[in-house]
Amino acid sequence: MSVYTPVSESELVAWLGNYSVGTLAACEPIKAGIENTNYFVTTSQGRYVLTLFERLPADELPFYLDLMAHLARHGIPCPAPIADLHDRYLQHLNGKPAALVTRLPGRALEKPGESECGELGALLGRMHLAARSYPAYLENPRGPKWWRLAAKEVAPFLDSRQNELLSKELKFQSEQRFPDLPRGPVHADLFRDNTLFEKGRICGVIDFYFAGVDCLLYDIAVCANDWCLESGGAALDAGRTRALLAGCQGVRPFTPLERAAWPAMLRAAALRFWLSRLHDYHLPRPGMLVHAHDPEHFRRILEDRVRARPVWLA
Amino acid sequence: MSVYTPVSESELVAWLGNYSVGTLAACEPIKAGIENTNYFVTTSQGRYVLTLFERLPADELPFYLDLMAHLARHGIPCPAPIADLHDRYLQHLNGKPAALVTRLPGRALEKPGESECGELGALLGRMHLAARSYPAYLENPRGPKWWRLAAKEVAPFLDSRQNELLSKELKFQSEQRFPDLPRGPVHADLFRDNTLFEKGRICGVIDFYFAGVDCLLYDIAVCANDWCLESGGAALDAGRTRALLAGCQGVRPFTPLERAAWPAMLRAAALRFWLSRLHDYHLPRPGMLVHAHDPEHFRRILEDRVRARPVWLA
Repeated sequence: MSVYTPVSESELVAWLGNYSVGTLAACEPIKAGIENTNYFVTTSQGRYVLTLFERLPADELPFYLDLMAHLARHGIPCPAPIADLHDRYLQHLNGKPAALVTRLPGRALEKPGESECGELGALLGRMHLAARSYPAYLENPRGPKWWRLAAKEVAPFLDSRQNELLSKELKFQSEQRFPDLPRGPVHADLFRDNTLFEKGRICGVIDFYFAGVDCLLYDIAVCANDWCLESGGAALDAGRTRALLAGCQGVRPFTPLERAAWPAMLRAAALRFWLSRLHDYHLPRPGMLVHAHDPEHFRRILEDRVRARPVWLA
Repeated sequence: MSVYTPVSESELVAWLGNYSVGTLAACEPIKAGIENTNYFVTTSQGRYVLTLFERLPADELPFYLDLMAHLARHGIPCPAPIADLHDRYLQHLNGKPAALVTRLPGRALEKPGESECGELGALLGRMHLAARSYPAYLENPRGPKWWRLAAKEVAPFLDSRQNELLSKELKFQSEQRFPDLPRGPVHADLFRDNTLFEKGRICGVIDFYFAGVDCLLYDIAVCANDWCLESGGAALDAGRTRALLAGCQGVRPFTPLERAAWPAMLRAAALRFWLSRLHDYHLPRPGMLVHAHDPEHFRRILEDRVRARPVWLA
């Protein structure tokens, strides 16, 4: 589980005095997640998530918290940061930067169908439109610069076939230029476990701590590579992929350049997660308490995207 | 009912295109309320209230909407204004200033008990603390200046006994000075029908369109005069009044000056609603579609507060 920094009940009671959320009723550590320490916090007012930031750069935290606040007040069902009595979203607790955000209802789906993929697409479209007026800027922290650094670090652990795939893909991506694709703040990590459903509707998108400014299409490619896989495989299921794209298209019509960039974008999204999983697997951080995901899953996805002609709208 | 400005389905569908809240599912006029036109609006994303402002001065609307946004992001369960794609809370629809806010769950209670009055007190305390960091200023629009104007207008409709009560009370209030009472933004109209409960907890405080900066104690007095009356009467029920005050005190301890000001504050709160009900009754606005409340109820409350020694904490 991922509780790097313990918080006692008395520490939490005192800390909640900085807020106008009532008195503590319950507190429970959250086991999922690998980056931060998280607790479910219930007060006489409502249900919240307390996050202690373990390794994100402190100067980047306002970008994430303000983005969540911005999206929430545009009606996007994301966690809304709670401001403290001094009107700040970012506090400190037990020596760590910390924030309190609303806890959203719903459950993640393991096997979303076409309908849910369509919902996701529409939500991505709305989120991208709402984020357009967000004024802050942070480059996608897992973008091309990071790929090159991470590739150097993990290369010694790879066999020759893996190294060939990696270097060829880095070369391919370095030749792609997307200066005219629509850009803006993107979630960049909207996997199934970061999306909460209730009665077939999305009532929560969570975990914005990999967000940054990038091509909007990249966000959709990240989702396709997790939500739209054939059962047990790495290839894209045509029905769910088209449902995802159609959902987006219904809110924000794609440009012809986006259609053209789709194959390369799926590869970029696969590369990013292959690299991060390789990195977590071979170079775990000291104190990392969770079992790393198998990197092979995203190697297979990348190989499929290199080989196959990807699904687009009919 | 209070729909002064009709909005057709096609007008609403087009207007919602300014927001990232999904597509229209249902729209229903709200019959309660006398100041504005309100609709319940349900979209593929969530449940909202659409308000068209019929007579509030346009330059005061940002004070109300920004206050609600401020309180909502501090965890106070009030309607959160939804920002449009240009990041504005205030829009226009059919020639009227208009805003979309979240719709809160729960129901108003006709007969709150001590427990609910205690909940209300705690919520008032939290709301007042959260509002302290709100930077905008608007004087309570139904404060002493307005009392004097309204008194002049309604005096011709009153009998001699009523006129005597009114002029004596205005004189009494003009001699009260509360420069050292804690002040800040207050709701100023938090009657039972503006407070939504679910399972014994307050999950919504609504209708902030009489809010302004005033003594915090005034907000509590307004509530006591509505929530804590003896059954069928005008006197304060001791148990519920103490529960209300204890709820506040548990969050923000009263100052000795507040204790001393309580009797005069209860009278001020009674005067304000007697005057507004007299005004609505004798001088209804053209096009006002609802039946005005009986002003006599608040005359009896004022007479009781003038005569009785009011309940305070033990």
